[in-house]
Amino acid sequence: MVTKAMAKVEAQLNGIDTARMFETIEAIRSDPALARFEFRASNAWVSGGENRSTIQGFYGAGREDDSRAAPFVFTNGEPPVLLGDNEGANPVEFLLHALAGCVTTTTVLHAAARGIRIEAISTELEGDLNLLGLLGLDEAVSPGYERIRMKMTIRADCSAEALDALLAFAHGHSPVCSTVCRPVPVELTWVRG
Amino acid sequence: MVTKAMAKVEAQLNGIDTARMFETIEAIRSDPALARFEFRASNAWVSGGENRSTIQGFYGAGREDDSRAAPFVFTNGEPPVLLGDNEGANPVEFLLHALAGCVTTTTVLHAAARGIRIEAISTELEGDLNLLGLLGLDEAVSPGYERIRMKMTIRADCSAEALDALLAFAHGHSPVCSTVCRPVPVELTWVRG
Repeated sequence: MVTKAMAKVEAQLNGIDTARMFETIEAIRSDPALARFEFRASNAWVSGGENRSTIQGFYGAGREDDSRAAPFVFTNGEPPVLLGDNEGANPVEFLLHALAGCVTTTTVLHAAARGIRIEAISTELEGDLNLLGLLGLDEAVSPGYERIRMKMTIRADCSAEALDALLAFAHGHSPVCSTVCRPVPVELTWVRG
Repeated sequence: MVTKAMAKVEAQLNGIDTARMFETIEAIRSDPALARFEFRASNAWVSGGENRSTIQGFYGAGREDDSRAAPFVFTNGEPPVLLGDNEGANPVEFLLHALAGCVTTTTVLHAAARGIRIEAISTELEGDLNLLGLLGLDEAVSPGYERIRMKMTIRADCSAEALDALLAFAHGHSPVCSTVCRPVPVELTWVRG
């Protein structure tokens, strides 16, 4: 749990405005409805394994966000061995990017709350996938990742024990890591366009 | 299950080279080891909620892939309300992009295998996230998405029943959708750098 008392507060730690961080946390603690967020993406198919997402607005902290003047646009593709032309990274690779970023940001945020100065983090990810699942050739094989390995190299001004505790906390509290580690329902509905 | 007999085979359907698709499937069927893939990403922290991933090589179909002359590079960021400066989309938004792309590509691939011509697909995604989980303010709240809604608009030359079956299959066999819907272990190890 993040509390002001846990931190040797500095105005800026790990690139985070800690005063604003603790204000945000206090605001959420006094009105938990502010913690509800809805993130969004719009995606359009192009051809074959190519499709494109547009990401801009979201709801959170009690209001529609309007901080982004222009949308972010990302293209999924597939490599030739998966019948594409490398139009972009493929979706399972984007998932690794999301996972790496989320565990890193969760680590950096909670380090700031604990008064731990992070000097560097880099992470190597590997995910095992068996195409027999995607292709429906063996229903006993999960179509998703079988497991994902994250190997983090980290430099910080704390003990090994404090890093163990920080990273166990980040693993357990990262939204993307939690979405991967636990079952999350995906409701798919369709209309004819 | 994808079989040649199911398809009214055309050389190119939905932007997919169907002859190569069926060759790939037959190759995997006769040597299931070819179905084993390892996807990878390298991520480096920049500051605060900003970090950057590099994606290039992977192992699959029995060899190291060398089809990408240059890496894909993606930046995670956070909006101001989450203490960032919109340096990029945030990790939970990238996860929606990955999910949209994977369900779309799985739909398009299996449509081609079934001889269904897809004319258009677009998808709107919404994911509900409660920050009480990330912040560790309520351990009963999952840090991950509580649920994700995908609303697809699709145009294809088949019946509503065939679309229902196709989309149920895609939901069940998309690697990213399966990674989200089922628990997947994430092993996090660290060394001091």
